[in-house]
Formats: sequence, structure tokens, C-alpha cells
Amino acid sequence: MVDIATRVWNHKWKIDPIVRSLIDTDFYKLLMCQSVFRNKPDTQVTFSLINRSKSIRLAELVDEGELREQLDHIRSLSLSRGESTWLRGNTFYGKRQMFTPEFMEWFEQVKLPPYNLEKRDGQYELTFEGSWPEVMLWEIPALAVLMELRSRAVLHQMKRFELQVLYARAMTKLWEKVDQLRPVEGLKLADFGTRRRHSFLWQDWCVQAMTEGLGSNFTGTSNCLIAKNRDLEAIGTNAHELPMVYAALAEDDAALAQAPYDVLSDWHDEHDGNLRIILPDTYGSKGFLDNAPDWLASWTGIRIDSGDPATGAEVAINWWKSRGEDPTQKRVIFSDGLDTAKIIELHNQFKGRVQTSFGWGTLMTNDFRGLTPDDALLPFSLVCKAVKANGRPTVKLSDNPNKAMGPTDQIERYKKVFNVGAQDKQEVVV
Amino acid sequence: MVDIATRVWNHKWKIDPIVRSLIDTDFYKLLMCQSVFRNKPDTQVTFSLINRSKSIRLAELVDEGELREQLDHIRSLSLSRGESTWLRGNTFYGKRQMFTPEFMEWFEQVKLPPYNLEKRDGQYELTFEGSWPEVMLWEIPALAVLMELRSRAVLHQMKRFELQVLYARAMTKLWEKVDQLRPVEGLKLADFGTRRRHSFLWQDWCVQAMTEGLGSNFTGTSNCLIAKNRDLEAIGTNAHELPMVYAALAEDDAALAQAPYDVLSDWHDEHDGNLRIILPDTYGSKGFLDNAPDWLASWTGIRIDSGDPATGAEVAINWWKSRGEDPTQKRVIFSDGLDTAKIIELHNQFKGRVQTSFGWGTLMTNDFRGLTPDDALLPFSLVCKAVKANGRPTVKLSDNPNKAMGPTDQIERYKKVFNVGAQDKQEVVV
Repeated sequence: MVDIATRVWNHKWKIDPIVRSLIDTDFYKLLMCQSVFRNKPDTQVTFSLINRSKSIRLAELVDEGELREQLDHIRSLSLSRGESTWLRGNTFYGKRQMFTPEFMEWFEQVKLPPYNLEKRDGQYELTFEGSWPEVMLWEIPALAVLMELRSRAVLHQMKRFELQVLYARAMTKLWEKVDQLRPVEGLKLADFGTRRRHSFLWQDWCVQAMTEGLGSNFTGTSNCLIAKNRDLEAIGTNAHELPMVYAALAEDDAALAQAPYDVLSDWHDEHDGNLRIILPDTYGSKGFLDNAPDWLASWTGIRIDSGDPATGAEVAINWWKSRGEDPTQKRVIFSDGLDTAKIIELHNQFKGRVQTSFGWGTLMTNDFRGLTPDDALLPFSLVCKAVKANGRPTVKLSDNPNKAMGPTDQIERYKKVFNVGAQDKQEVVV
Repeated sequence: MVDIATRVWNHKWKIDPIVRSLIDTDFYKLLMCQSVFRNKPDTQVTFSLINRSKSIRLAELVDEGELREQLDHIRSLSLSRGESTWLRGNTFYGKRQMFTPEFMEWFEQVKLPPYNLEKRDGQYELTFEGSWPEVMLWEIPALAVLMELRSRAVLHQMKRFELQVLYARAMTKLWEKVDQLRPVEGLKLADFGTRRRHSFLWQDWCVQAMTEGLGSNFTGTSNCLIAKNRDLEAIGTNAHELPMVYAALAEDDAALAQAPYDVLSDWHDEHDGNLRIILPDTYGSKGFLDNAPDWLASWTGIRIDSGDPATGAEVAINWWKSRGEDPTQKRVIFSDGLDTAKIIELHNQFKGRVQTSFGWGTLMTNDFRGLTPDDALLPFSLVCKAVKANGRPTVKLSDNPNKAMGPTDQIERYKKVFNVGAQDKQEVVV
């Protein structure tokens, strides 16, 4: 039977929306948003889209009108009653009422602020300006929109069975990854792939496949909408934007040196247990840990998001030991450019020495490498970052100089303040 | 949107029918049926299912009740008005009214005769008795039912995403075959896979994929229902059952030696052009061709269905030359156990020497090798053959002694009459 109503409905779409909900975003975004809403609500920020893969000429692939339609659609969204109920009523990380009534009241009425869009040199310049708690909500949907419009542009060229076979191949490929990961005992793996997903529906499929294939070793997804729809744990803690903005707001070098710890001090007041995860690499992990206050050593874990991951984990283990902590009771979360071989290698390497978890991103939700003749769906490195706070530029160094961001003079200043020496360069694939 | 009506409808099915139509069968079956209806309508025959792959214990895999339901369902089928219109109105092989009004009137009222079903040694003994034109219609649907019930028994054990990935892998595998065949210039390939298909829906998908992937190099399908639904050519001419039954009816050795030519003499009266295809291997190709009357050399082609295919084609070419015919104007149709590598090899080997076509069967519509952990969907060699005609046993020798059928004493008699010497054994995979 043809479902006539569905068919007619599909034809009635003005657009086929990519982002269908304000909670089609990463869980940590909402945690950070609440923190910002409480601690720095009046900060004015600019977020900007940056395509680190210059060879992907997005403005030539993606129609500006379609992009505007998608972004306008996101601006029309507001939190639905069911979404609000889920956020208010759910238990996150074992805690009820993770989101305060004050935050929820604000979030229920929020709409995303305007965007600025221009084309330059085959790329889109897409920026968002306004108060930090509002503007920050653009990051994930903006990335998801650009990623999926690029996918759609490529898919638009394909014939019916080519399309079906493409997805058959992609499913086969993902399931091979599931088959590789299934025998790994004690694996803890979550989906972190919202921002660079091939598409919403594909991410949703991948999450369901992982759930069936890996059982309890698949611990959840960073995507709130999918977590809600599929009855999974929403996963995530915090990200670079907090120290980047706190640092930009610092009045002098002394305050700058202190800024990353101020972030975690605010966080310490708000969260405990598995939400106390240190992200040490914004201005170099080693210096950050060497100078960290003692109370940070009591935190549950460290997330490694740049640099060589095994080296990062060794640094973390040694740091805990040096502070009198037992690393076997601590957790290292790997989240940078992972794929199955690296996940299995790291899991085995650190088994028994430290607890490990994996936040698997682009190569879970967007690995179409080798599936089209000209590899037109190769994943690429798109980010959307805070570039200014109260008129001052932000800076990110990370443990990989290829991921550094900010004006050159400020990068040099930050390197001095944070005592960052020579760093190994690592290719940024995704 | 969930299509509630479809969902309720699916739940309402008493059975999920495997054979949905009397024309879900091979085109040559209908051509042969018309020939039998005209020339030997009163012959009483017995057809019997034979599983040449003894390791597949069908009676342990397939529930007898389900099998009976499917067979009973086939007995309830009769030609629909649209099917009748298609058979009466269509152009087959460039000819209008391929089926005579007399035959169509009979076919419109025919219902399949009863079946006998017993279990023995882990296998089903499934036989059909009655008048030849009716009983012969059982062959293809009986095979398709057993094949698909076996598939379903295996699939029944699988979880939701495992199932989806299984078909994703199968699609990927078929498309790799399409990719291999696409560059082969001048290829003529048809689907001959109805009898040993994985399932009806899968065959239908494969045919559509070949149509999109190979364009006009995919010449059609032997399956009448799919040809009708997908607007493709119905392909096929004649098969071993004609000489086998004609031979069994022969009163003495002289008549026996003549029987295979009598078949083609009747065919010669009914058909011309591309329907004049010799199937020489029933009692040994070489002897058949050596003793063939001259008018057979004028026929359009030869189908190679057993023995080494290249050798068979060389024999055909040499025979045409010996009869003063130009092989480049003749066609060799390969139809035995083909897969892509063999198709490409044979196509290249005979390019410019003879025209070639390929009837691709089991490894097009049922190649699930390597797609399940224990290879539970391995294709196997199931046939349904005329074993008796007017009380006398039938015999088949073919060009591969592993495909020989019949009582031992009769096989020896036939070998003498047809002067069949030593034959090379070839493994029968499908």
C-alpha cells in the first residue's frame, strides 16, 4: 500500500528541516548554557563558523538560499512542552533536576538570535553575535546544517539505486565497526557525532545500530533529541568555549593564567561525580595540570581532545599519581578523531591502569569514506567557535598547534602566560 | 507518519505469500506449456523435488505447516485479468500473440493440481502428479517456496538491525557485481534467478538494480511477473523437461534416439528467430549435435547449461562451421552456475567469434555467501524435475555426470543410445 498521506505530506514541505528541535544539540551545550546563564549571563560574544578543510568549497556546493532557509527555520524553533518536560523531569548522570527552574523558564522562551551570512573565497562566513547564553546555542545546529546541506548537495546528483546502495554500504561499514567493537570487554562508548553528522536521520540510525549491536557497552549519545526519542542516556560535560571566553574576559595576564581554573571552580560549585571532568588542553594540558589547584585532583576524570591521546592519558595518570590520587579510580575520556582501531588500541593499552570512555564523533556518524567514486562525501573539519567576548578576541592553543585559533599576537601572549613550549603537530582530519 | 492501514494489513495476513501470481514463474515455462498443451496434452507426468545439497536438511529447517500453507496458497491462484491481458497483448521476442487464444482460454481457468508431501531423512519428498501441462507449472513456484522458506527460517533468528545490515550487505554485494559488469561493452545479460531466489522481494530489487546499473546491457528477466511489473522483456525459450519427457515416451531405442529432435521439430513449427535456441546437453551435447538434422543448423543459437562452458561454446562454434554456418551470426547462451568473473571471462573469450548472452541465476538472486556469521544462507542446489511420463522413468545425462538423473539401468541404456562416452565431472554448486 502506498501511504498517500505521507507522500502528499512530503511534497508539502517548504523545506526538509535539518534541525528539528532546540534539543537536537549536544547535552554539554545545555549544561554549559546553564552555567553561563548563572555565572556570565551578560557577556557579549561572537561565534564564527570556520572550515579548516579549505579544499571543501562550501559556498560553491551549498546554495545560499537553502542555507538561509535552514538557519531561519532554526530561529523559528522553541522548546516544546515534551522537550521541556524531559529536561525538567529526567535523571541526568544520576541526578534529578539537573536544570534549575530559573534556567528552564529562560530556556522555554528562548529563540536563537540573528545570524550574519556572507560568501568569501568559496566559503561561507557565518557569524552570530549577542549574549553568550543565546549565541552559544547556535554552534551545534549551525554545524549540523552545513554538514547536512553538503551531504544533500552530493546526494542530489545520485540515481535511485545508487542512493540505496550508498546507504547500504554505509550501513555495512558501520556494522563492521560494531562487529569490531562488540568483543571489546568493558568498553564504554558514546556517540559524540552530532556536530559533524552526515544527516540527522543517519545519526539516529547509527545510534540505534550501536544500541542493538553493543548493548550496555554503548553508554548513550550526546544528542539530547535522540537520547529523548530513543530512551538513552544524554552524555557530555563541558567544552573549550568556557575557558576561551573566561580567558578573553581576563583583565591582565595574572587573571588570564587563572581563568581556566575559574571555569572549573564555577563548575565545581554546580556539579559533582561523573560531571566533574577536566578538559585540560585549551592552553596546553601539561601546564594546566602542573599549576592546577589541589581540589581539581579530586575530580572524576580528564577528557583528552587534542594531541596524541595515549600521551595525554599518560600525562593524566602521572598527574593523578603526583597528587596522591589512585588512577584506577579515575576516568580518561577520549574524544578526538577516534575510529575503531584507535578505540580498541587505547582501551587495551589503559585497561587496569585507568578507567576509559570514548566519545566517538565524526567517524561514527559521518564515515562515508570510499563509498562514492570520487569520495565526494569525505568528512571535513568544520568548527563553530567563540571568536570574541566583550569585544576581545578569544584564543585556543590545544595540544596540537594545527588546532590553534586566534590572532597571532594573542597566541604568542597566551603561550607565554601558559608556559607552552614546543608542541607536536598532528594532522586534523575531522 | 506511521501508515496505520499498512501496519494493520500486515498483521492481518494469514500467510505472507511467497508466490503471489501464476505468472511468478519463468517465461520459458509458459512457452513450453503451450507447446505441451498443443502437442502432448494427455501425457501423465510426475514431477519431484530433489535437493542435491544433502547437508541442507530442509525438513528440519522449514516447518511443514508453513510449507503446506504456501503450497495451498499457490493452488488457490488463478490468472488475473491483468496478467491475461499482458500475456495476450504483449510483444514477446518481437512477436504479437505469442500465446494462442486456445492456450490462453485454458490457462485462464487452470489451477495447479494437488501435491504429495512427506518427510524422509530430514528432507521433504514433494511430488506432483497429473497431466503434463498442469503439473509442469509447479516446478518454479515449488522451488521458489522452498528456497524462500529456508531463507525465512534463517532470518527469523535475527534481530532488527542485524536484518537491516544483512540486506545492506547483500545490496552492497550485488552492486559490486554491477560495478564489475558495467564496463563490459556489448554485454547481454538477463535474470534467470527465479527458481533459486532468496525471496521474491529480493529478486525484484536485484532486477531493478540491474536495470538502473547496466541499462540496455541488462536485457530482461525470465520472471513474467517482474517483467510485467517492471516493464522489462520476458526472457527464455525451452528446457530439459521437453526432451526428457519425449524420451521417456519413446517406444524403442530408435524412437529414443530421435526424441530430442522431435522436440525441436515441434518447436521449429511453433517459433522462429531468437526463440529457436537449441539446448543440446540433455543426453550429451556432442552426440546430439553430431547427429542433428541439417535444419537445426539454421537455428539462431545454442544454450550451454552443463559441462565446461567454454568447451561447450567451442563445440557449438565448430558444429556451426561444419554445417556451413557463420558462427558470428549465431548466439551462445550461457546459463549454468554463472557469476561475474565467469561472465566477463566468457564474454571476452568469445567476443567477435560468436554472439553471447548470459542467463544469470542463483548467484544474482541468492548470493548471501559470507553475509551471515555461519553462512546459514549459502545457496544450494534444489531442482524439481519430471521423473516419470506415462508410467516410465525419465532420464537426464547432461554434460556433467554429477547432474545425471534417473534409474541406473536407464542411464546406462540412454548412454548407449546416445553414444555418450567419458564425461568430465564438475562440482554442482547451484
